[in-house]
Amino acid sequence: MSILVVGSVAFDAIKTRYGKVDKVLGGSATYFSLAASYFAPVRVVAVVGEDFTAEHEAVLKSHGVSTDGIQHVAGQSFFWSGEYGENLNEAKTNFTHLNVFENFRPNIPESYRDSDFVFLGNIDPELQANVRQQMSGARLVGGDTMNFWIQGKRSALEQTLRLMDVLLINDTEARMLAGESNLPRAAKRVLAMGPKALVVKHGEYGATVFFEEAKSGCTWRPFRAPALPIDDVVDPTGAGDSFAGGFMGYVASQAELNRDVFKRAMFYGGVMGSFAVERFGPERLAQLTRPEIDARFQLFRELTHLD
Amino acid sequence: MSILVVGSVAFDAIKTRYGKVDKVLGGSATYFSLAASYFAPVRVVAVVGEDFTAEHEAVLKSHGVSTDGIQHVAGQSFFWSGEYGENLNEAKTNFTHLNVFENFRPNIPESYRDSDFVFLGNIDPELQANVRQQMSGARLVGGDTMNFWIQGKRSALEQTLRLMDVLLINDTEARMLAGESNLPRAAKRVLAMGPKALVVKHGEYGATVFFEEAKSGCTWRPFRAPALPIDDVVDPTGAGDSFAGGFMGYVASQAELNRDVFKRAMFYGGVMGSFAVERFGPERLAQLTRPEIDARFQLFRELTHLD
Repeated sequence: MSILVVGSVAFDAIKTRYGKVDKVLGGSATYFSLAASYFAPVRVVAVVGEDFTAEHEAVLKSHGVSTDGIQHVAGQSFFWSGEYGENLNEAKTNFTHLNVFENFRPNIPESYRDSDFVFLGNIDPELQANVRQQMSGARLVGGDTMNFWIQGKRSALEQTLRLMDVLLINDTEARMLAGESNLPRAAKRVLAMGPKALVVKHGEYGATVFFEEAKSGCTWRPFRAPALPIDDVVDPTGAGDSFAGGFMGYVASQAELNRDVFKRAMFYGGVMGSFAVERFGPERLAQLTRPEIDARFQLFRELTHLD
Repeated sequence: MSILVVGSVAFDAIKTRYGKVDKVLGGSATYFSLAASYFAPVRVVAVVGEDFTAEHEAVLKSHGVSTDGIQHVAGQSFFWSGEYGENLNEAKTNFTHLNVFENFRPNIPESYRDSDFVFLGNIDPELQANVRQQMSGARLVGGDTMNFWIQGKRSALEQTLRLMDVLLINDTEARMLAGESNLPRAAKRVLAMGPKALVVKHGEYGATVFFEEAKSGCTWRPFRAPALPIDDVVDPTGAGDSFAGGFMGYVASQAELNRDVFKRAMFYGGVMGSFAVERFGPERLAQLTRPEIDARFQLFRELTHLD
């Protein structure tokens, strides 16, 4: 079943110990779409400027991603420039030019309205809520956020969290959102804000999903998926969005939504994240095959399973 | 088969958000012994002062731990005072009184010499090497170290690492020892220093074991065990030594040493670490039953296994 994603389609300049790129396709919706496209049809809602060419669009289209919801406007696309030092979990931002993204008003094409799954990429929580309301028939809504919104738009974010089924954030964000350093306690507080499930991404240590007990109708214990130990993390940009893409994509490919499906989704999230970091930008994600994905899924299993 | 452990038997004053204790039994050999005692017979080599009474000794003896190797000398036992803030992975040390530990010279009783397994707790690497040489017939030697020795006794530590089969340290120590921030690369460098296996403990995120490829004779892929998400981490003191005790204890209980055994040992390490932090000092570790341990092992499995 189809997934609608709203987020940024952008260009990035990235520097890591492995080199640098001056302008590669990036943005949360790009990474998410490519990762999810191996599992389910994806529809993108975003805005781009004149520097986003047919060639860039073809990267998405060649993966069956519908780009009808990408608004083309005058000006330049969102541009982010950043670099990573020893700590690959945190980028140092050189500059962020919002450009056309500054006036982004998500507009859901009529043909997208029947999407059963929705992913609200890391954008202003007011826009996330707006999209959510336009997609009132969705079966499952996932979303992301960041420190910028947690600190700067707390109240709007709390409204939006009530409209999300699954929130996917990292450790720092979960602790900041909850105001609590202990992770299981922080998870309980975040789940009390609305989501039925909270996926906390631990970077190189994997990710844990916590379930809201009352809402799931029964006690679903947390589940922890690993991350692959990788010698050459060429570029961590987009790993979190790729995780979300693998997670939501797998969920959307399944008939039923139960704990087993979410467990496997956690593995596929980790798998797609692990591919994303192997090359600069979305290069590796754009070149995958399903057998490669399944082989890595088996690696994840071997890394964690006793038998 | 028996495990010989050399390390500290000490007293601790500990403060956490859950309260404080002024003087509880502590030390690496204490935590290690109690954790390992549920799996195999343990023999302790350590030094204590006059404040270590028969009552303290009974805590170990009641778990079948042999205390013949504990030297009683005039003076006070090793005493550590520390506290934990929000970051439970790092204690703030108020003071460390080495006391009788300052002149500790490990002396292996004749009756201990047939121990098949040896654990070199976190003490001066020269003393570790000395014990290792006295136990030349050991089947498997595990060991621990810390930043203090990595920075201050690098050369002696490198000598000692050549005599260890399994090194168990945390992320920070592994990165410091290797001079490399990427964990799989750091692991390769550490394994090149001598150990056949390196267990890196990630605190609340679990632990990963890396194997030396050439020495294991075949390619054993890394294995990652989880840690239990715990709401009430009352006192993290001794979690690492308890991990080592569960790990070494399980290994010592098995006839063969293969990757499957090490995988399960990683789980039992995590299990014993998870119990250790539930109460102040070694209180919880001292009161366990094997069914409780097995039930938690199953929880660890449920937390990580797809089916």
